[in-house]
This record gives sequence, structure tokens and C-alpha cells, in this order.
Amino acid sequence: MSLPISFISDFGSDDEFVGVVHGVLAKLAPESRVIDITHGIRRGKVRAGALSLLRAIQYLPEGVALGVVDPGVGTERRAIAANTPWGFFVGPDNGLLSPAVAMVGGADVIVAIENPAVMIPGRGATFAGRDVLAPAAGVLASGEAGLQDLGPEVDPESLFPLLLPLPDVGASSVQGEAWWIDHFGNVQTNVGPDDLHRLGAVEGDHLVLIVGSRRHLVIWASTYGDVPAGDALLHTDSSGLISVAVRGGRADERFGLADGTQVTISKE
Amino acid sequence: MSLPISFISDFGSDDEFVGVVHGVLAKLAPESRVIDITHGIRRGKVRAGALSLLRAIQYLPEGVALGVVDPGVGTERRAIAANTPWGFFVGPDNGLLSPAVAMVGGADVIVAIENPAVMIPGRGATFAGRDVLAPAAGVLASGEAGLQDLGPEVDPESLFPLLLPLPDVGASSVQGEAWWIDHFGNVQTNVGPDDLHRLGAVEGDHLVLIVGSRRHLVIWASTYGDVPAGDALLHTDSSGLISVAVRGGRADERFGLADGTQVTISKE
Amino acid sequence: MSLPISFISDFGSDDEFVGVVHGVLAKLAPESRVIDITHGIRRGKVRAGALSLLRAIQYLPEGVALGVVDPGVGTERRAIAANTPWGFFVGPDNGLLSPAVAMVGGADVIVAIENPAVMIPGRGATFAGRDVLAPAAGVLASGEAGLQDLGPEVDPESLFPLLLPLPDVGASSVQGEAWWIDHFGNVQTNVGPDDLHRLGAVEGDHLVLIVGSRRHLVIWASTYGDVPAGDALLHTDSSGLISVAVRGGRADERFGLADGTQVTISKE
Repeated sequence: MSLPISFISDFGSDDEFVGVVHGVLAKLAPESRVIDITHGIRRGKVRAGALSLLRAIQYLPEGVALGVVDPGVGTERRAIAANTPWGFFVGPDNGLLSPAVAMVGGADVIVAIENPAVMIPGRGATFAGRDVLAPAAGVLASGEAGLQDLGPEVDPESLFPLLLPLPDVGASSVQGEAWWIDHFGNVQTNVGPDDLHRLGAVEGDHLVLIVGSRRHLVIWASTYGDVPAGDALLHTDSSGLISVAVRGGRADERFGLADGTQVTISKE
Repeated sequence: MSLPISFISDFGSDDEFVGVVHGVLAKLAPESRVIDITHGIRRGKVRAGALSLLRAIQYLPEGVALGVVDPGVGTERRAIAANTPWGFFVGPDNGLLSPAVAMVGGADVIVAIENPAVMIPGRGATFAGRDVLAPAAGVLASGEAGLQDLGPEVDPESLFPLLLPLPDVGASSVQGEAWWIDHFGNVQTNVGPDDLHRLGAVEGDHLVLIVGSRRHLVIWASTYGDVPAGDALLHTDSSGLISVAVRGGRADERFGLADGTQVTISKE
Repeated sequence: MSLPISFISDFGSDDEFVGVVHGVLAKLAPESRVIDITHGIRRGKVRAGALSLLRAIQYLPEGVALGVVDPGVGTERRAIAANTPWGFFVGPDNGLLSPAVAMVGGADVIVAIENPAVMIPGRGATFAGRDVLAPAAGVLASGEAGLQDLGPEVDPESLFPLLLPLPDVGASSVQGEAWWIDHFGNVQTNVGPDDLHRLGAVEGDHLVLIVGSRRHLVIWASTYGDVPAGDALLHTDSSGLISVAVRGGRADERFGLADGTQVTISKE
């Protein structure tokens, strides 16, 4: 039985990169379903790719996760494949896979993909997604090879970590940061509802959102419908984190928030 | 036998939203083929999504149509599933589905999706596409559930209508509007060839296209090849409506047309 | 057994064009896997589409290649289907298919798609991708029809050629042009490593890259890792051609290169 393959990259949609990787997968695992998580990760943004994979992983069918966001391609950075309770992860060892691997329970075996027999011989510089990572994902999905066929085992503890910022919870405020602006302009922060509870806040309270030198009074609502159209709100979003949103509008523009912007939430 | 699922949304391609919905569908209906109609509907533009689905529906394999363009998510707006001669439609009850449902012959049964057993329990605000609509589409496609398992029946006449503007056909002119600018800059209007026939016009005639205060003499051609490169034309497009086009150019830019712009066509 | 179908177009992702073609294919060849090579080819850019298909073809599963980049739709331009050692090619006869067909060994049979029985009757102007090309690809993929069912044979030598520029190799310099700027800003030229060898250059040499009136000293490296972050390099890319790249940056912006820009590389 062939495993489904879920594929995320920063390849964009203008070139044939995504299609070529699909072609390689179709040749090696013709029975596998391939799911495109997204290919819109901004160029080389490993953290954005890792967070996207992290948010998606529990909704993806167990099988193979193939990640290609790889600013270090062509350097000493390793290509790896890992076995986890969810299935296999294949990608560069640059932190892209780490949060999702941790979320599903960690890796018990990790190998460095070094066996030329499961690579596509390139004519020049390697296109790792096509020549190394897709073939590895394909043979794992089809069952034609196991991890041990891809290359030598490496220490499972050696997986390159992605350092995700923790919010700083004080007595009267939580300092966090924006870590995802979605297509709709909603701003997910790294602050969780528990962090706000620790301030003594509960849903329904008005809280102060501080961005730069500006302070905004915003309700912590449970859903968009709780505020009038055009109003801002904080809410626990569909990933379980506190997001800043504007009903029918863009919170990123309203509050000047970009990926990485510091935000402070306080009880006033 | 699993039904194919055709999926349209305003999710864009930057985030993992589309991939997550595919993941949910793959888990619940692993045998179903999933067709992405488009995810490029502009944010919250229900009419644009409805027209896109309307134009596509007859070319899609009978099965399940899943639509997610939903500016009212998180409000009292219902999520529904409908049975029609074409198959099932699943989406928000905001008009997105109405034109396509009508085109295929109407719905005989509509239910409100309210049964928590066929939803994914979220941790915060609902991501309805993922937590409510995709699961409903998945179980309908796999045959694991029928409409009656999703929630209570509602009056099939209660489907939220989408009011599509009709052109105003006078004695010497037809007043309509632009309702779709495609990727190539072609401008589809809500005027049909019969409306022009009522003016006494036939293909080959020169007609006057009025946009704002400007008048343009344009041929009603049968195909691009009938005019020289760079020339404008009116023609009956592949949806059977009158479109404004420029051979090898963009009609939207040439004539200052946007979605919703009033256009008048007259015999002069 | 149904053949896989690989599909490339300039349809973009905003409209339902791609989805509609998928719908037609799903109806006619429900067992066929469909691979989207890319739909991001710029509007009507036949050369860009042809090069993209050329770079991809060897990685795609043998079957049917469907190409739709067709600025001449609605004119006398033919729609064709060709048999090759790789499989079938279906598309407009405007040069889009020629380089890939040549790469896989040439076509032994070519037909003009003219049989109305394998077309979808349109209501107005033909949407050839939907009404003519997709149906042809679908019935070829499912095996429901052969080339001879699509229309009359035409001279296989009559395939519209795409003239790809050859670099001009002199005694001390090679003059070529940029022919692909990828999503990452890498610039593929039409110069091959053999052209540089003819100058007496080898990997590791510093060469002069001339764009317009400006001269840049650039190393011919084997991989990104050979230069410091931010530095430019020439290298043999994953298609086997010389590309201009910047480690961690965009070579198109650094050197003012666009699709078609003349570049000269000399030993200095």
C-alpha cells in the first residue's frame, strides 16, 4: 500500500518546480496521493514554512511529509529523513521539520540521505527538491525502500532545532510577537489563551494591545460575530493561539503588524 | 464508490489553508479525487465565487461541490449541504452556492450542518472550511454519511439567494455591467447575445460600447481572428455571454472596466 | 490502463480555468492522475511555456502532455496531437510543444484535432483548452480514442518550430541571453558549460559577465556553497546550463537581467 505524500515548499507557482517534483513522485510512487500543503512560503523563510507545517500536520493523512524550504541548498546542510509516530518526514535539516516532528511525538530514527542509488543524477548544481528529497519521499511512500536504504543513521537528538520564541508573561502584561499574517490579514501571535488567563483575563474582557508606542483597547472575543463589522478583536484562533483580527478587515494593516513584530497585551 | 469532490475558495495560495482542507478530505474520503476549481477568488467576494462556480459546474464530474467563500464566518450564518440532480453542494448559506444549484436543477433536500459528530473539534474559533464544511463533504463523498446525518432539514426554498443583476434592454440600447475580469483582461458582461438581437444587432455589426461618458465603436465579432491584433471586439464568449476583449491585449485596461462597472451597448 | 496527464498553461490561479480543464479530464479519464506542471507561465508567452515544458519533460511520468499557452486562439492556428517515444503531446501548433517533442525523440505521427465528436460544443467563442485540447488529452489518456480518431494526419515535419537562440561562441567570449528568471531570481542563460570550456575556462575560474555596458568579475563555481553569502556566481544549473546566481540573493536584480537580456561571458 502506498502512503500519501504531503508536500510544502517555497517554490511559488510561476515555475515548473512543483510540477517537476510531482512528476518525480508520480514515477516512484504512482499509487500515492500527493497533497500540496502550500508552495507559497516566502523564499527561504524556514520559520514560516516550519510554522505552516506545524499548523497543518495533524490534519494531514499519515504518510510522508516532504518539506523544501532550503536557503542553504548547495552548502554543507544535510538532507534527512525521519521516522515518527505520524510517519516519515523528509527535508533539509535546517529546522523546517523540527516543530512538526516534535508535535507528533518526535523521531526515533533519522538518516542522512546520502545513498546515490536513491537520487536522480543531476547535470550540474543539485536541485535537491527534485534530485534528493523527492526521490527519498517517493521510495518511502511506495515502500520500495526503508529509511536504512537512504543513508547512514544519525543521532535522532541531532535534528536541527527551530527556536520558536516564547512569550514573556509578566504580572500585568504578556509580551509576544506576531508570527503569521495570513491571506486575510489576520495576525497570529505566539501568545496562548493560558498566558492571558495568567494575567487574570477572561474572554469578554477588554485588553490593551500595544504595538510600538501605540495602545489600542481591544475586546477578547470568542468569535467574529461578537463584534460589529469593522471592529478589532483578540480571539483564540483555529490553531489555539491568540490572534488579532478585524471583522471584515485586515488586522495587519490596522495595527501595522508584520511577521515578527513585537506585541504586548496587558490588562488595563 | 467514492464521489469526486470539487473545491472552490478564497483561501489564496500563500497559506496552508487549501492543503489542510485537502488533508481532511484525504482522511475522510481517501478514494475521492479532489479537483481545485480555484482558490483565487478575492477575499470574501461571494458573488465572484458564485459566478466562478456557476461557470464551472457543468464541466465538473458529478459528485460533491465544496465552496468556502465566507465573510460571515463566526456569525449566525448557516453551513448547509444540499442534494441536487448533479450531486451534493456543501458551503455557507450566503449565496455562494445558489446560482450553481439553480443551474443544475435546484435542491430537493437541504440540511443545516449542525451535528458535532461530523465536525472536527477546534480549539478556538472555528475554521469552518476545515472543521465543518470539509468533514461534511468528505463523509458525503465517501458515502459514510447521508445528508440526514449532518443535521436537520431546512426548507429547500430557504437557500440564501444571490441576486444577479439582469441587463436592462431598451429600444436602442442594453445597459448591463461587467461581472468578471479574467486573468487575460477579458471582460465578461451580464449581457447575452439575445439581448443584442433584441436591438436588431447581429454578429458582424459595429456597436457602440459606452463606459462612463466615453463611447467606443466596436465590432461584434464571432472570434478573435476576425479583428486585427490590438483591436477590440465584442463576442459571445465561452460561457455564452457577451464579453469585451482586445486581440492580444487587455480589455479591462483599454476601457477602464472593473468588476461591477456599468456598460451600455447600443446600435448606433 | 489510464495514462497520467501533465498539464501546463498560462491560465494563472485567479480564475476557474485550470479547475474546469481538470473537470473535463476527470470526466473523460477518471482513472488518470493529473499533474499540474505550472499554470504561471506569463500570458501568451509561448517561449517561456516551451522552455518550462522542455525542462520538465524528462521528470514527468510517460503519458499525455497537455499544453495551453495560446495567444492565437480564435485564429487559423491548428490544434494538434502528436505521438512520440515519451507519449502523446496535445496543444496548439505554435511552438509550445516543439522543443519538448524534439527532446524526447521527435514525433512520428501528428494529427490536427478537427473531429467534432471529441470536442465539447461551446456556446460561443471556443475556449480551446476546455473544448478541444482537454477532451483530446482525456480520450487519449483513457485509451478511448487513438490519434486517428482526433482528425487527419498532418506531415510530422510540419510541427511549428520554436526558434531557440544559440549562443555565439567567439575566441574570447560567448554571447548569449537570459532565457529564464526563476522565482528565486536565478537567471538561466542559453550558454552551456561546453561553450565556456571552448574559451579555455574551467570551474573555479573568474570570468567577466557583461550586461549592457557594465562588466562584473564573477567566479564560475560548482555550487552556492563555494561563495560567501551575498556573492554572485556562475554555475552549471540543474538543467545543465550556465546560470547567474547570488547566494541568498536575487541575480536578476543585482545585474539588471530580464528574460531576453543579452549577456556576454568572457575570459579576462
